[in-house]
Amino acid sequence: MKVAKVRLFVETSLSGGAMLDLDPAAAHRVATVMRLGVGDSLVLFNGRDGEWRATVAGIGRRSCAIVARDMLRPQAAETDVWIAAAPIKRARMTALVEKAAELGVTRVQPVVTRRTAVSRVNVGRLLSTAREAAEQCGRLSVPAVGAPATLERFLGSLDPSRGLLWCDESGGSPPVAAALDGLREPDLRRSWAVLIGPEGGFDRAERTLIAGHGRVLGVDLGPWLLRSETAATVALGILQSRLAMP
Amino acid sequence: MKVAKVRLFVETSLSGGAMLDLDPAAAHRVATVMRLGVGDSLVLFNGRDGEWRATVAGIGRRSCAIVARDMLRPQAAETDVWIAAAPIKRARMTALVEKAAELGVTRVQPVVTRRTAVSRVNVGRLLSTAREAAEQCGRLSVPAVGAPATLERFLGSLDPSRGLLWCDESGGSPPVAAALDGLREPDLRRSWAVLIGPEGGFDRAERTLIAGHGRVLGVDLGPWLLRSETAATVALGILQSRLAMP
Repeated sequence: MKVAKVRLFVETSLSGGAMLDLDPAAAHRVATVMRLGVGDSLVLFNGRDGEWRATVAGIGRRSCAIVARDMLRPQAAETDVWIAAAPIKRARMTALVEKAAELGVTRVQPVVTRRTAVSRVNVGRLLSTAREAAEQCGRLSVPAVGAPATLERFLGSLDPSRGLLWCDESGGSPPVAAALDGLREPDLRRSWAVLIGPEGGFDRAERTLIAGHGRVLGVDLGPWLLRSETAATVALGILQSRLAMP
Repeated sequence: MKVAKVRLFVETSLSGGAMLDLDPAAAHRVATVMRLGVGDSLVLFNGRDGEWRATVAGIGRRSCAIVARDMLRPQAAETDVWIAAAPIKRARMTALVEKAAELGVTRVQPVVTRRTAVSRVNVGRLLSTAREAAEQCGRLSVPAVGAPATLERFLGSLDPSRGLLWCDESGGSPPVAAALDGLREPDLRRSWAVLIGPEGGFDRAERTLIAGHGRVLGVDLGPWLLRSETAATVALGILQSRLAMP
């Protein structure tokens, strides 16, 4: 019996002795790619019931039956941080979503701005990227991926109590570390959305719109012009590191 | 005449009226890829003499002559931060170097550890990646890229006054934000090397070796198992954001 190295997100409920059939794609991955056989162990999570050790109970041509055995970790509360970013070229958007999923975001929201050059977003593919990153990094949930929304619609639908960490490229905002340090505890410990603009930045009307959000915190990420996926990773890393402090 | 969108690192000295011949690769990029013609503007930097507006003075079959015109920005002091990381697969190593260069590292040092699975490192290719990222992000220098060194040799040759920000995956180190907040100003404002281990982490003997460095600061990057390039980006982003604070 192999030590569990396969970690899968599933949709079904998990409890001791629960039997589940993997969907054909997951069955292929377990039986053919990972080469697990009957009796081998793997790890399952579903975003609700914690993390479970499970074993392969049966393998068919395009199916795989799994039995959940023991809970390894209970479901735990997560910080509620979104990434909202203007779509970029495919490989870099994939990297952005992968990094955001590794850094614990609960939602990826593509935001279309006036200077957004990339119009097509494959939400299904980004969701697969997010799921694989969540499986790999050990978190207990998978982020949602929203359909692209205009900046106006995104801001209009944003819960006014959610903080908006605006990565402002203009140089007019304070350094991110100082800005976060300056927040009172109740203003830090809330839900957040990190907002990343397009190549070329937000235009003047968009900047006014963003600045009008009740809980906006404009921050400067440093003297260099960062690519979107770098800016997203840095901003999420810094925010989560602050939220992880006791 | 086009607005300057081409930004090039050159080796030669820069001063008002200085004439320089681009190497064939740079000449190809300027004349053929970017399609600049005689009289068009571009931006040059060399890591010593600041940033200069320049114009194309002549284009040959495999050559391009440039004249430096006006200094746009003087050379400024940079934070001295290295990234030292166990080599990973090619595409992810490229991403790691690109992000590190965007985040202002002065040196990229591949470090070979016992659990390092990737043995081949193309230093020349990584240097090209670093140069392109530096050109793109607007910094005034290009990081050096070291030849791979064993962890023992790397630590043995490290200046004892350089801080070692060790991204410790074991869970035994304090959260990175708290660890950096806990430093006294003179202990924060020094040269640093950020150390990232291989997939699977450092082994026990290596951990002892690292812990023996005089200026080591072990930090925990959060509850998730981050890929190397994500960990490097987050750690560099957090450290530089602290160093950027007044």
